[in-house]
Amino acid sequence: MKILVSNDDGVNAVGIKALSDALSELGEVLTVAPDRNCSGASNSLTLTNPLRIHTLENGYISVNGTPTDCVHLAIRELYQDEPEIVVSGINDGANLGDDTLYSGTVAAAMEGRFLGLPALAISLVGKTHYETAAIVAKQLVEKLKSAPLGKDQILNVNVPDIPYEQIKGIRVTRLGARHKAEGMVRTQDPAGREIFWLGPPGAQQDAGEGTDFEAVAQGYVSITPLWVDLTAYERMSALADWVER
Amino acid sequence: MKILVSNDDGVNAVGIKALSDALSELGEVLTVAPDRNCSGASNSLTLTNPLRIHTLENGYISVNGTPTDCVHLAIRELYQDEPEIVVSGINDGANLGDDTLYSGTVAAAMEGRFLGLPALAISLVGKTHYETAAIVAKQLVEKLKSAPLGKDQILNVNVPDIPYEQIKGIRVTRLGARHKAEGMVRTQDPAGREIFWLGPPGAQQDAGEGTDFEAVAQGYVSITPLWVDLTAYERMSALADWVER
Amino acid sequence: MKILVSNDDGVNAVGIKALSDALSELGEVLTVAPDRNCSGASNSLTLTNPLRIHTLENGYISVNGTPTDCVHLAIRELYQDEPEIVVSGINDGANLGDDTLYSGTVAAAMEGRFLGLPALAISLVGKTHYETAAIVAKQLVEKLKSAPLGKDQILNVNVPDIPYEQIKGIRVTRLGARHKAEGMVRTQDPAGREIFWLGPPGAQQDAGEGTDFEAVAQGYVSITPLWVDLTAYERMSALADWVER
Amino acid sequence: MKILVSNDDGVNAVGIKALSDALSELGEVLTVAPDRNCSGASNSLTLTNPLRIHTLENGYISVNGTPTDCVHLAIRELYQDEPEIVVSGINDGANLGDDTLYSGTVAAAMEGRFLGLPALAISLVGKTHYETAAIVAKQLVEKLKSAPLGKDQILNVNVPDIPYEQIKGIRVTRLGARHKAEGMVRTQDPAGREIFWLGPPGAQQDAGEGTDFEAVAQGYVSITPLWVDLTAYERMSALADWVER
Repeated sequence: MKILVSNDDGVNAVGIKALSDALSELGEVLTVAPDRNCSGASNSLTLTNPLRIHTLENGYISVNGTPTDCVHLAIRELYQDEPEIVVSGINDGANLGDDTLYSGTVAAAMEGRFLGLPALAISLVGKTHYETAAIVAKQLVEKLKSAPLGKDQILNVNVPDIPYEQIKGIRVTRLGARHKAEGMVRTQDPAGREIFWLGPPGAQQDAGEGTDFEAVAQGYVSITPLWVDLTAYERMSALADWVER
Repeated sequence: MKILVSNDDGVNAVGIKALSDALSELGEVLTVAPDRNCSGASNSLTLTNPLRIHTLENGYISVNGTPTDCVHLAIRELYQDEPEIVVSGINDGANLGDDTLYSGTVAAAMEGRFLGLPALAISLVGKTHYETAAIVAKQLVEKLKSAPLGKDQILNVNVPDIPYEQIKGIRVTRLGARHKAEGMVRTQDPAGREIFWLGPPGAQQDAGEGTDFEAVAQGYVSITPLWVDLTAYERMSALADWVER
Repeated sequence: MKILVSNDDGVNAVGIKALSDALSELGEVLTVAPDRNCSGASNSLTLTNPLRIHTLENGYISVNGTPTDCVHLAIRELYQDEPEIVVSGINDGANLGDDTLYSGTVAAAMEGRFLGLPALAISLVGKTHYETAAIVAKQLVEKLKSAPLGKDQILNVNVPDIPYEQIKGIRVTRLGARHKAEGMVRTQDPAGREIFWLGPPGAQQDAGEGTDFEAVAQGYVSITPLWVDLTAYERMSALADWVER
Repeated sequence: MKILVSNDDGVNAVGIKALSDALSELGEVLTVAPDRNCSGASNSLTLTNPLRIHTLENGYISVNGTPTDCVHLAIRELYQDEPEIVVSGINDGANLGDDTLYSGTVAAAMEGRFLGLPALAISLVGKTHYETAAIVAKQLVEKLKSAPLGKDQILNVNVPDIPYEQIKGIRVTRLGARHKAEGMVRTQDPAGREIFWLGPPGAQQDAGEGTDFEAVAQGYVSITPLWVDLTAYERMSALADWVER
């Protein structure tokens, strides 16, 4: 089984090594990831500059681009035959609710799906138990191999930051929602010039029953099926009425 | 009426000037946009570096960040009271179908919605008749003022690149889909080192009835209502079955 | 007289406008500068990405590169015939002593000289009296026109931040030296991750007689002739002895 | 002996590993280098963004900055006591003549000297015999240890790309000069937009007796002592006359 691994924390992150190691027990892993931390990269593409690749000593391929660039470049240029699945992560921190839209790790999985492959993004809700997330990733990929889910699936997986034995199970969830993010941090650089830092995410707004927030809070692995059609279908007719007014 | 204008082509682009000029007839416009072309920026956020602002001679505010950064910073830090609407564009080229997900112009509108404001992204399917798109933008904002659509609306508007008189009308559409993008361009820089450029978008796949592709091809303004919940609801139960297997 | 103007504070800086306006009274000015603040850029070149140009409404040409890139690109690609002089500035702050080596404004002048043109870098030792520096720049360029100094000259000019009437005169100086820069600022970003900011320059070490530091402190315009051969000629024979040991 | 190693080709380059390995036989090596290829970085400093460090699996420290940033940060923040020498390289390609001014590898050495340490930049005039340059580097550092040259020395060393046994000896040289660089490469990106690439360096102009160009062409290691005072002393009096005219 050929597996493409990427992430948004960068090719030197702890999580991508844990993931690559775990999945290499299932098949041939190619790890292609950004040379820098690209957290918050969303589905961004590098359009104004060319990409360059560099193979590191451990065999991972470092790209001066975004997670989406990496997956695109790997599938289109680095493989002779396509891989069978794209797995992105293990993200350093959660990708829950609205944050999913900003995540480069989720975007890497989306790009796999755009190119016709099943894809899975896996995030650790914390910074400690990468081994738990690695076990979960391996189990899910094995299961996807024996029981495929269809090529246009993207699974967004979040794993509680606890030992594997304490995981209560898996829940299929919907994305929750946050309140608006906190204000920015307005400060000065050491030269006295005004700078602004993006602030922390907002508190949870919709963390109710069935959400990804709820599942991980209760000790479950959360799996949310994603799709990439942003059309708000149920609003089309009301909008058509509005246009006619 | 307070209107926030942004884009992804950058603060010096032709389209943002056409848009700002047209909307300033309706109220007080604040234009806040990236200092560089950010086409393909998607919803990316600048998390590892601080943002800086610079007010240009024409009053526009230039930010060393992404479209999403610009809208976030403007609403959180530059306004005393919030604006009433976020309008993003006029994009240099279409934002149709799958491409919507990669667009920084659409992302700027999404960020307005995340912060609780109605939002509109407007793109010109070409490079010539910005005045047509400017008229359409002004009409839609006027209409939204007199007949609000609800705060969590994002309208993705694409305008054919023809004189305004030739526009046949407005159609409410769903996003179409493209075939997979073409292969990348693999070449060398002048020093002989291998580089890769992202290639052109793929041909249209689903450009059928009701799509944004179809509407603009027939000379109509396309309006697609967007939302930002990526959950694939209709797949949740099948996925739950799969997990239980 | 054809004059190329550049700087390192970026195409939107106050100083480059003051300089371009003043010099346009002497001839045909072409202003080509970085799209972003490049303070500290030194003689850096953009080798891994291509450059792009964008003509702003005021006719200035914005380049996504360094000061050195701008001068190189302007002379090689934007002029049919070469300009007669390169003038860089007016820098927002001093370029005295060792700091000269890090300055993008001085580097822009150096690049003019590498391409065979006389060149002048002009800096304001402060942030207020740009008009003083503009008058000085104009006078020097006029003088260079009537009494050329030779093509491989680079003049590094620093102007006290006082009204023109209070300037005591011009002194030809040598570069002084600073003590080592202060320690860096080690702090955290809002997400709690460790970051390091470069600290302020060190105190003056050699600000003695004949230095640029001394001249501006006493109210004189300082002009230091620069050259670009870094060879330490007077150490060559001792080094040769050392090699033979 | 504590040795700080840096370069401009980036922390993953072949040359910095060859150098670090060779010097670790002489003492305790700390390798701190840019996370990306910074060829052409000159003495540029990162002033508008903070620096971040990341320790790689091999113990090297990766910095999101320039060579100068790396040396500055290492000496000021990463060492308790200062190292005894800064060694930069092994550069992938020559740093001869005028090119020295643009080199990030030479700049890293200069920064060591600014902070009061002896410093050595070493470059391979080719891409093959890194082992030759590594042996030369080790010999020179050993010699500097037993016979110090003074703290404000910067040695710019270029090594012919041949097996060590074929090296004819060492020559102390002055920097040669090049003709002006070739024109830029003006072309289009795949989207049809105009781009400019910096072209190849010009042919040799002053490659005569005593130059670094000549020494390496004849099979000798070239060592040029550098200093960092750009004042053109011998032109000061003529300039003073000119000012008085």
